[in-house]
Amino acid sequence: MTLAVLFGAHSFEHEISVVSAIALKKILPKTEIVYIFCDYDRNFYLIPTETITSKRFSSGAYKNDTALVLKQGGFYAKKFLGERKVAFDVMVNLVHGMDGEDGTLSSMLTFFSVPFIGPRTEGCAISYNKLFTKLYAQEVGINVLDYQVLRKDSPMPIRIEYPFIVKPLRLGSSIGISVVKEEKELSYALDVAYEFDDTVLIEPFKKGVKEFNLAGCKADDFIFSIIEEPQKEEFLDFDKKYLDFSRTKRVNEATIDERLEQSIREAFKRLYDPLFIGALIRCDFFVIDDEVYLNEINPIPGSMANYLFDDFEGVLYALRYHLPQGIAMPKAYRYINSIQAAKGK
Amino acid sequence: MTLAVLFGAHSFEHEISVVSAIALKKILPKTEIVYIFCDYDRNFYLIPTETITSKRFSSGAYKNDTALVLKQGGFYAKKFLGERKVAFDVMVNLVHGMDGEDGTLSSMLTFFSVPFIGPRTEGCAISYNKLFTKLYAQEVGINVLDYQVLRKDSPMPIRIEYPFIVKPLRLGSSIGISVVKEEKELSYALDVAYEFDDTVLIEPFKKGVKEFNLAGCKADDFIFSIIEEPQKEEFLDFDKKYLDFSRTKRVNEATIDERLEQSIREAFKRLYDPLFIGALIRCDFFVIDDEVYLNEINPIPGSMANYLFDDFEGVLYALRYHLPQGIAMPKAYRYINSIQAAKGK
Repeated sequence: MTLAVLFGAHSFEHEISVVSAIALKKILPKTEIVYIFCDYDRNFYLIPTETITSKRFSSGAYKNDTALVLKQGGFYAKKFLGERKVAFDVMVNLVHGMDGEDGTLSSMLTFFSVPFIGPRTEGCAISYNKLFTKLYAQEVGINVLDYQVLRKDSPMPIRIEYPFIVKPLRLGSSIGISVVKEEKELSYALDVAYEFDDTVLIEPFKKGVKEFNLAGCKADDFIFSIIEEPQKEEFLDFDKKYLDFSRTKRVNEATIDERLEQSIREAFKRLYDPLFIGALIRCDFFVIDDEVYLNEINPIPGSMANYLFDDFEGVLYALRYHLPQGIAMPKAYRYINSIQAAKGK
Repeated sequence: MTLAVLFGAHSFEHEISVVSAIALKKILPKTEIVYIFCDYDRNFYLIPTETITSKRFSSGAYKNDTALVLKQGGFYAKKFLGERKVAFDVMVNLVHGMDGEDGTLSSMLTFFSVPFIGPRTEGCAISYNKLFTKLYAQEVGINVLDYQVLRKDSPMPIRIEYPFIVKPLRLGSSIGISVVKEEKELSYALDVAYEFDDTVLIEPFKKGVKEFNLAGCKADDFIFSIIEEPQKEEFLDFDKKYLDFSRTKRVNEATIDERLEQSIREAFKRLYDPLFIGALIRCDFFVIDDEVYLNEINPIPGSMANYLFDDFEGVLYALRYHLPQGIAMPKAYRYINSIQAAKGK
């Protein structure tokens, strides 16, 4: 299989995406990888797979690589006469955060008929916005922590008790997130979060809560990863998560009883189907008093959470055949024709 | 002002968009219009404004017009040597239904830095999906009718009492919608709705409920249309709504008391801000026992609901200067550089 990896883009997590993309090379020995880079300014380039390094991007050397245009049917390189389509079987959207996880690139790939593994626009819109994630989770019967939404332009009293977490409403990877233990820490935490979003979400911070991550997708049936109990200090900050994104080794499985494992899988299924069909996502859960709570849905986990699977390559190969299909649509001018007929034109 | 009108696209409401676009010509006497058509196969064409007619599209004659490519910065026409950018001040997204209202085109215009009037991807995702609309409306404190979601692949007992309305979960313009009065009508209604979506939404059908539509946007402050009480039989079906889309004359204002008018405006404000900043939307409300309920949010109403405004052209001119801006982002390789520095590279 030839897999195109789309990475980079106009995102605070651009660098994570670069690292995440390069890491895939080690993980997919049977796969031919075609690297398509989107730079901060949203121009596309074809990067040679053999010589890809993170320095190619940080130094700007990628600008000497082949520029690509995304058009109906795929990515095209300009040739002296005409153009050449970049050949691949399927693309994987590995752009983390903005552009990748907010629905922008999924919309473009759908519009231009590029088959891709990754969340669709609707799933992105729900998982990228932490308020919408909560509304959606509750609707499908999954618990969430209490929360309050604050807007930069209309301050209001906070009703969540200290300590709490302040998060920008959008973005992922812990960017702009703070734990606030007492009032004097609040204004700085809000300033930081408001740098990234005009709206922030506050939720109670519960020390020592068990956290469990489960990745998976639906092919013929659901394919689940192991359940990981992530190591954490107070919470994983951006620097630690960043290192985490280049992980290619398997982690230790959480030791939990079968009933809890089933509850976590059941919650994953409800969240996944049908909103995330075509994507390999990771759901991060809390367990409090034996009840499962959704923390967040990560619709494009770092290096696609390969380290949680026994046969990650096999998962991608299965998922490739279970991408959502568009609705068949008659391409006809029924109304206009009938009006013209009535007018005798 | 030169206004580019984007219309057509891969949508069940493609024809409505064509009619809606052509109608704009009459409505905007001070504006130079540039017509950019997206055909059913999602190719772009520049259509001469002077000679635009609906027949140009139904006959396929548009294929002789100038083909355009959407790239970073705008729409480009190929020239013998090089290419020419289509010049305009701002674009209006007038694609109804799929592609236009589901977030696809808004994503593309944002990605390629085209300034446009219209809903952004997040607002589209919420208003295009009738379940998400309800969750969102409730979150911002607006009543909605009771509802139940049904999936084609997992039948379940219906708990809403007859009569009820069956609607495809997505799409607009009454496509695939039926009123079901008794059980024997149900299976046909479901078949029709499932043609358009794998998921349908059922809500109680209340005869004789008052319906009120309000359009508006936020420029320096909110700009509201008159409140219209739409004429209706049982409900407006696709054919009637279709004719409605070419309307350019003002309708009669609903006669309601000031308290109700204020309630409707207040509901509009809560729904609009900030999710729909940059768009001119129409919210359709029910009033039951003096309480306001949201029926649906139409983020790109037919001909932008011009017939509800005294000075529609003035509204567009004001809105143009209040489009959402992206977040400033450092385009730096901080992590990769620091890792390389640590490695001595």
